[in-house]
Amino acid sequence: MTGPLERTAPLAGADSAAVAWLAANRERLLGQLLALLRLPSISTDRAYAPAMREAAAFLLGHASRIGLHSARLLEAGGHPAVYAEWLGAGAAPTILLYGHYDVQPPDPLEEWHSPPFEPAIRDDRLYARGASDNKGPLWCMLAAVEAVLATEGALPVNVKLLLEGEEESGSRTLAGILDACADTLRADVLISSDGSFWRPDLLSVNVNSRGMCALEFTVETAREDLHSGRYGGAVANAAAILCQLVATLHDAHRRVAVRGFFDGLRWPTEADRVALAAIGFDEAGFLAEIGAAPGAVERGVGVLEAMWLRPTLEINGIASGYSGPGTKTVLPHAASAKITCRLGIGQEPAAVAAAVERHLVEHCPPYARLAVHRQGHGARAYALPADHPALLGVERMMLALHGERPVRVGVGGTLPISSMIKQHLGMDTVMLSYAVADSAIHAPNEFFRLRSFDQGMAAWALLFPELARTYKETRT
Amino acid sequence: MTGPLERTAPLAGADSAAVAWLAANRERLLGQLLALLRLPSISTDRAYAPAMREAAAFLLGHASRIGLHSARLLEAGGHPAVYAEWLGAGAAPTILLYGHYDVQPPDPLEEWHSPPFEPAIRDDRLYARGASDNKGPLWCMLAAVEAVLATEGALPVNVKLLLEGEEESGSRTLAGILDACADTLRADVLISSDGSFWRPDLLSVNVNSRGMCALEFTVETAREDLHSGRYGGAVANAAAILCQLVATLHDAHRRVAVRGFFDGLRWPTEADRVALAAIGFDEAGFLAEIGAAPGAVERGVGVLEAMWLRPTLEINGIASGYSGPGTKTVLPHAASAKITCRLGIGQEPAAVAAAVERHLVEHCPPYARLAVHRQGHGARAYALPADHPALLGVERMMLALHGERPVRVGVGGTLPISSMIKQHLGMDTVMLSYAVADSAIHAPNEFFRLRSFDQGMAAWALLFPELARTYKETRT
Repeated sequence: MTGPLERTAPLAGADSAAVAWLAANRERLLGQLLALLRLPSISTDRAYAPAMREAAAFLLGHASRIGLHSARLLEAGGHPAVYAEWLGAGAAPTILLYGHYDVQPPDPLEEWHSPPFEPAIRDDRLYARGASDNKGPLWCMLAAVEAVLATEGALPVNVKLLLEGEEESGSRTLAGILDACADTLRADVLISSDGSFWRPDLLSVNVNSRGMCALEFTVETAREDLHSGRYGGAVANAAAILCQLVATLHDAHRRVAVRGFFDGLRWPTEADRVALAAIGFDEAGFLAEIGAAPGAVERGVGVLEAMWLRPTLEINGIASGYSGPGTKTVLPHAASAKITCRLGIGQEPAAVAAAVERHLVEHCPPYARLAVHRQGHGARAYALPADHPALLGVERMMLALHGERPVRVGVGGTLPISSMIKQHLGMDTVMLSYAVADSAIHAPNEFFRLRSFDQGMAAWALLFPELARTYKETRT
Repeated sequence: MTGPLERTAPLAGADSAAVAWLAANRERLLGQLLALLRLPSISTDRAYAPAMREAAAFLLGHASRIGLHSARLLEAGGHPAVYAEWLGAGAAPTILLYGHYDVQPPDPLEEWHSPPFEPAIRDDRLYARGASDNKGPLWCMLAAVEAVLATEGALPVNVKLLLEGEEESGSRTLAGILDACADTLRADVLISSDGSFWRPDLLSVNVNSRGMCALEFTVETAREDLHSGRYGGAVANAAAILCQLVATLHDAHRRVAVRGFFDGLRWPTEADRVALAAIGFDEAGFLAEIGAAPGAVERGVGVLEAMWLRPTLEINGIASGYSGPGTKTVLPHAASAKITCRLGIGQEPAAVAAAVERHLVEHCPPYARLAVHRQGHGARAYALPADHPALLGVERMMLALHGERPVRVGVGGTLPISSMIKQHLGMDTVMLSYAVADSAIHAPNEFFRLRSFDQGMAAWALLFPELARTYKETRT
């Protein structure tokens, strides 16, 4: 059976004037998206600063042309964010529409079948860096705003637009922008065009994401690598010590064994488990797809609970000594490991990083020198309240558009925007991207399904009236 | 106080005619060594095959010119060995003189202060690839043969010369040569010019060396690296599994914890410990020199015993996931480690490798795929009998030359020639190299002390009559 995301037409929303307008203007809208995708707006690399400025100017001009007001750049020392607004809906709710116009670097270039910044359409898919993350979904959102304004002359809700330029480089100055422009940006909810559907065959809406903290450590046992014959037995082996340290981080049941790691965690409840079970997830099929065997999950825990609701401590990489071909009889003097922890609701990133650091210090033998470096501030986990009016609005819109209710799912990854917006502006975040997680996001040959482009534009066009309705119902 | 190896002159042997001849012919002999050092005889690299042939021809011609007979190449499919003999000493013992004319590759080239194949003398040191390993010490041996023949017209012992061309590439065809030419090569003892003094300040003779076996293993948990957020918690982390496996290889007392690992081992005895204690070794100074802290040795074991007599299991390198700068939120699907074990007397390399492989198989969790690869056949440990006449001859020669008895020491490393010669020809091996272990052997800026050059030539010249005497005494 084909899922609702896999059907091309007709969509239920086809009787809306805005949706009809979108269909009529599709080629022009798609052409504008291609123009945006041609700009190599790589925020992490200074060499692409001109393309970043060009992309910001492109969006600034576009926002004004489609009828938004006060279009301007918001800056806090880094790449600017594009801001614009339409506040003509009076007492209706105000929605902060979020997206980002920067993209990941395209390396490794040689693995692309067509150049990353020359968009190419093959088999109903649009291939380009940024196609799914986030220019394509962002453009659906803007096209819908344009369509509603063009057909109705007004939006049923107030909107503020925030298009970030540093999402792919850690949102370094976003907190500064949020603080400096708090009054400008404040709204009832943020709806983000970033993110993706979990699977191409499942209509879903993300209701929580995990937090993160990152650190790395090195152990050193001598001044340089030594001959394993001449010194072996007398001097500690840094690679072995590192392994012994890593091995203490989990217990025999595959649970994190770091004292204080779980402090503050809102443990998954029986209700959570019932909800996860209702998804009817095929654990064996999921694992087989990625070539993994069952049995690696923490004892007594299901796969979805482990991926969406429970914290993890993952080794991202280890390196020590010689790892080229053949044998090298070296006794490594230094070894390093990188760690990222995914956090559940209630855990504090800094406290978790401190707990891991303390654990390493306590377990390092006296004949090895340990250095621990924390990487960044991390991010808290985020959960959207189950009865949030914007969530209900999205669910109703999907039911209307696709004829099916979406499943509420979690995101194992981290969406820092949610926790930042909560922390700085006290607002909740709803994710609404028609990209799908299988679209080579951050990888070569990133693509966006043209079917998703059509569905996404229609979805946003139908969402605005649904939001006006759910907020009205909730307020009365 | 200056040790005997640190003194330049006068040496006690200066009243020997051969030693006087060596002093008189020093410049010519040194010039010939420089010519040999100019040949880039790198056996591991096919590109240097012409230089290998040139070096073999150089030595073949030289052996004939100094008065050795039957000079010829011995081959078994690889780089040939140079053979020659002088068998005019009747019932006196026959000594197989060993050296190798191939050298290590010189990389990294940019770290050399003068080109590796343009010998340069600075501060009484001769810098060149192969200067200490083994062309310099080998040349001392040949010069002494020439000196004794030139001054006495005969040697007091029979000699056979075996100059290998594949020592630096694992002696791949040496076993074949030994088997094919067993009658030609058979002698009372092999004395090797390869190896080195343990320290520049200590007159010593090596009486045992450790064996070795090598293996590497990989663990795999999925088809490719995964996003640590999307999959973390559901899929086993290959880096963590590898670390857990490595951590099982030693117990809390830092002793190898692999069942069967120690099978057959001749454990160090109280007598061994008394002999080691007599060396008066400065453990703290030794460790401080290499930037290592004390306490890493197996519980209850001294540093020298750990380095010379006990087996080890060392991790030579580990690699998994991302180890570049910054954070990469990857869940590694594969991880690898390289292991070499140094073996004590009595351990069988194949049995030890099998024990380690079995241990890994038994400890690998069911959700990881393990592959173990053994590298080569390994080598047994070797111990020279304490009353071996050639050992006594070397010790007497050193007492006569330096005015001091050498200390008997072990070699933590592996000298495969000793165990091969024992296995294939039933002969013992005595090491006599005037190189010093601190001479950047296998590293950039390898050097040979000119003082060692003079001492080495004199030592070999005095050794021949001492050997004739100790063998005669032992036989009567």
